[in-house]
Amino acid sequence: MELDESDCIDRLGHAGHGVLATVHPTRGVDVVPVVFALDGRRIVIPVDTIKQKRSTDLQRSKNLRADPRCALLVEHYSDDWSELWWVRIHATGSDCPSGSLDAVRRLLASRHPQYSADGSVVAALVLDPEAISGWAAST
Amino acid sequence: MELDESDCIDRLGHAGHGVLATVHPTRGVDVVPVVFALDGRRIVIPVDTIKQKRSTDLQRSKNLRADPRCALLVEHYSDDWSELWWVRIHATGSDCPSGSLDAVRRLLASRHPQYSADGSVVAALVLDPEAISGWAAST
Repeated sequence: MELDESDCIDRLGHAGHGVLATVHPTRGVDVVPVVFALDGRRIVIPVDTIKQKRSTDLQRSKNLRADPRCALLVEHYSDDWSELWWVRIHATGSDCPSGSLDAVRRLLASRHPQYSADGSVVAALVLDPEAISGWAAST
Repeated sequence: MELDESDCIDRLGHAGHGVLATVHPTRGVDVVPVVFALDGRRIVIPVDTIKQKRSTDLQRSKNLRADPRCALLVEHYSDDWSELWWVRIHATGSDCPSGSLDAVRRLLASRHPQYSADGSVVAALVLDPEAISGWAAST
């Protein structure tokens, strides 16, 4: 039922996609789908020029600058509930230093070939995990 | 790219599953997978005895009693990013009155047959939407 940390990290490494929740000053919370890659135990989340958006100065980044507490959920849903599982990370989020962006892009490209092109990642968030937990209906 | 409210509600009605973010007093945010049903424009989320858990007094319920602001994200992910879409509701969450629980269970059972059994839903959360938005890579 509860997953140990190595199982959680293994599932994160294969997932590549999750949901990021951040603190919003008036709405309380924001929640957005994200793609990500694992960099050791850290999570890197790109701000890209591929998926259409109005601006690359995203609300998630503004939220994290004001309050770095966040959570990332990776989950598997099925109408067969014996197949359900999820992994959750509570983390501290910050902007990726610009000097590391190209390394982050290459790491992301190993999971998401959309990032093979130079310049496809214009910024990134780095999540430093403080707690990792997970659950599976069956293991 | 942006979805209008009727399209968002239509997608919610078919989904049955999403991710709920709530405000946590020290962690900032919590985020959990949930199943749900639409009751008009309201969202009902069961606390059930089916999916294994340590307690039915869930942290999400405690969080909403302390701060009712929350957000529900429903999304479709694919490695083909032309198929991505999501719908997000910012809402006020509260405990469902116990007198309404059986009606909520029957509503949920129409989407999730796991709730056909009497007593399978022991509590529920009701989300009153304040804002609904959505996005699709292509429509």
